[in-house]
Amino acid sequence: MASNKRIHGGNIKAAADKYGLKPDKIIDFSANINFLGPPAVVEDVIKDNLDDIVNYPEPNAQSLSLALAEYHGVEAENLIVGNGAVELIYLVSKVISPEQALVLAPTFSEYEAAVESVGGEVNLFELNRANKFSLEIDELIVELNNSQLDLLFLCNPNNPTGDLISKDDLLKLLATAEKNDVFVIVDEAFLDFLWAEADYTLISKAAAVDNLLVLRSMTKFFAIPGLRVGYAVTNRQLVTKLEENKDPWNVNLFAQRVGTEVVAEDKYIQKTKEAINREKKFLYQSLEKLTGCEPYQPAANYILIDISKTEYTSTELKDRLASKGILIRDCSSYHLLGSNFIRVAVKGREDNQQLIAALKSLLEAGGE
Amino acid sequence: MASNKRIHGGNIKAAADKYGLKPDKIIDFSANINFLGPPAVVEDVIKDNLDDIVNYPEPNAQSLSLALAEYHGVEAENLIVGNGAVELIYLVSKVISPEQALVLAPTFSEYEAAVESVGGEVNLFELNRANKFSLEIDELIVELNNSQLDLLFLCNPNNPTGDLISKDDLLKLLATAEKNDVFVIVDEAFLDFLWAEADYTLISKAAAVDNLLVLRSMTKFFAIPGLRVGYAVTNRQLVTKLEENKDPWNVNLFAQRVGTEVVAEDKYIQKTKEAINREKKFLYQSLEKLTGCEPYQPAANYILIDISKTEYTSTELKDRLASKGILIRDCSSYHLLGSNFIRVAVKGREDNQQLIAALKSLLEAGGE
Repeated sequence: MASNKRIHGGNIKAAADKYGLKPDKIIDFSANINFLGPPAVVEDVIKDNLDDIVNYPEPNAQSLSLALAEYHGVEAENLIVGNGAVELIYLVSKVISPEQALVLAPTFSEYEAAVESVGGEVNLFELNRANKFSLEIDELIVELNNSQLDLLFLCNPNNPTGDLISKDDLLKLLATAEKNDVFVIVDEAFLDFLWAEADYTLISKAAAVDNLLVLRSMTKFFAIPGLRVGYAVTNRQLVTKLEENKDPWNVNLFAQRVGTEVVAEDKYIQKTKEAINREKKFLYQSLEKLTGCEPYQPAANYILIDISKTEYTSTELKDRLASKGILIRDCSSYHLLGSNFIRVAVKGREDNQQLIAALKSLLEAGGE
Repeated sequence: MASNKRIHGGNIKAAADKYGLKPDKIIDFSANINFLGPPAVVEDVIKDNLDDIVNYPEPNAQSLSLALAEYHGVEAENLIVGNGAVELIYLVSKVISPEQALVLAPTFSEYEAAVESVGGEVNLFELNRANKFSLEIDELIVELNNSQLDLLFLCNPNNPTGDLISKDDLLKLLATAEKNDVFVIVDEAFLDFLWAEADYTLISKAAAVDNLLVLRSMTKFFAIPGLRVGYAVTNRQLVTKLEENKDPWNVNLFAQRVGTEVVAEDKYIQKTKEAINREKKFLYQSLEKLTGCEPYQPAANYILIDISKTEYTSTELKDRLASKGILIRDCSSYHLLGSNFIRVAVKGREDNQQLIAALKSLLEAGGE
């Protein structure tokens, strides 16, 4: 099976070098980060803790782990903090060491890379473009019943499609997985952008059953990808094994201290959900009006756009926009998306308008 | 084989809680960190880069990797940066996936934990207490020739003993290892504290041969354990494999930016070597005069002390000193050291004098 390419958005330096741009003149739609920026408290926390970099960070990020467990109403023994959620994808893959893993296509590329890094075989469950790549739950259940799998990765909402799986469907899947001895990892990296987050999350379930791990990122919602902090909730036995399989200082001081503070920022959390939901609606509706653009209904803070009816490939469109200082995600590195899709982050009104204007001039003037 | 315990120094918060101390009143001799604190530039670099935490860190820390490669006169393709050197111990263990690894006893505990985390068997090469746990190179060569090993961990100078292996001996070992298909990891985490660093390091060799990886920490020398940054030099093929086996954002923004700046701090580097060499001499000579204390000759910024002739076990001594606000490393978690050894960091004159005074009152007044 040909591996998909491990290409990611958010590499501003590389883009600046490649397109001869000034990094501070770039509008980055390629990484799905909260456009409000980090809560104001982040700068203060970092400045207040500068003196403490001479000490090792707290082993296994215990205080942060407690704060996050309390925030989600689970026990700290069910939670493990990572150097970003992606570290945990690699760590749990190492500990579970699957022989046969099932990964949806298209989805975030690191699941596949992590399984391959421990010698596991990746089986792709191909989503149907005619159905906008939404998950047909019954087909996936048949696949689980008929295959010899030991691990299933899900991403909810899915990246890059925005497809959201209902809790009923997830629970059905989980029951089927349990029956077939399949461990399930649900990546909820973007779920916190949803008003209805509580209706979809499996965090409580992950603490209660033996075959489920839920991943969370703090990077996207709190706009702190530079700090590296994510976490997972699962059964206690697995948390213990995961801790034994990593060094105790994987989460740096600032990530720990900032993480502990930001979960208490109720107003910022509220304001973010309002802003994202307002702007994703604006951006989606504006994209719909552009000739040749077919945006997919967004669930979180990013929108997949089918551009097959334009005259551009995704790579051409990426290059054209980059030359105007606008970075988008060319989706050609994802399985099944070919050169037909781009993904854009939902940003603030002014940036969104600039994106629309730039796309409009490219698509409707027939290029430049 | 009974595993040694993964206990480490430097956990100030846990000590403060356990002994009812105020963290800022503690003098920490348990972690071997440059007592001068970080170079002044570190605070500025962090403050200057605060705005950039909304962006992902540079993938694979490319700029830092270039700076470190240049610093050591190797190619960037031979260097990989880690979230602390310990992440790299786990990563290289995963990639090499040894069936039989040889680890010296006593030494840093994470080598053993990393090998076990990938299902490898740890064989201990027991050092001889009668010889102050110094390495008998010919015996190790015999062991390599007579065993079916695939991985050997060395720590130079060794932690916690301070034993230093000469370059001639290392090259002999390396040749024997090559003959027997054994990959060698040399952890030089503390080597940069030595004036004669260049006479001992295998960094250039690691870039040139197929069976050697040299680990370096930035944590100890630059006093930035809170930031998490270390690196390794090895052959290009292995660097590529290591990169494929981790996520691209393992090194956070501040670690990358600070790391790039501190290697240019020539005056600080010089000043540190002077201070450490002056104070280690003072501390060693002062310890030698204490009843029942037998300090081991230090190579870097820590001293192992045989306290078997005192009336205390290492744990008792740790507790007694902690109640005075002084943290030391109880070495009972290391193989072979039983309750007979403590380890102390070399700190500034005033702190060193306080340690000596506290030990003196415990040892020479027959306790309190």
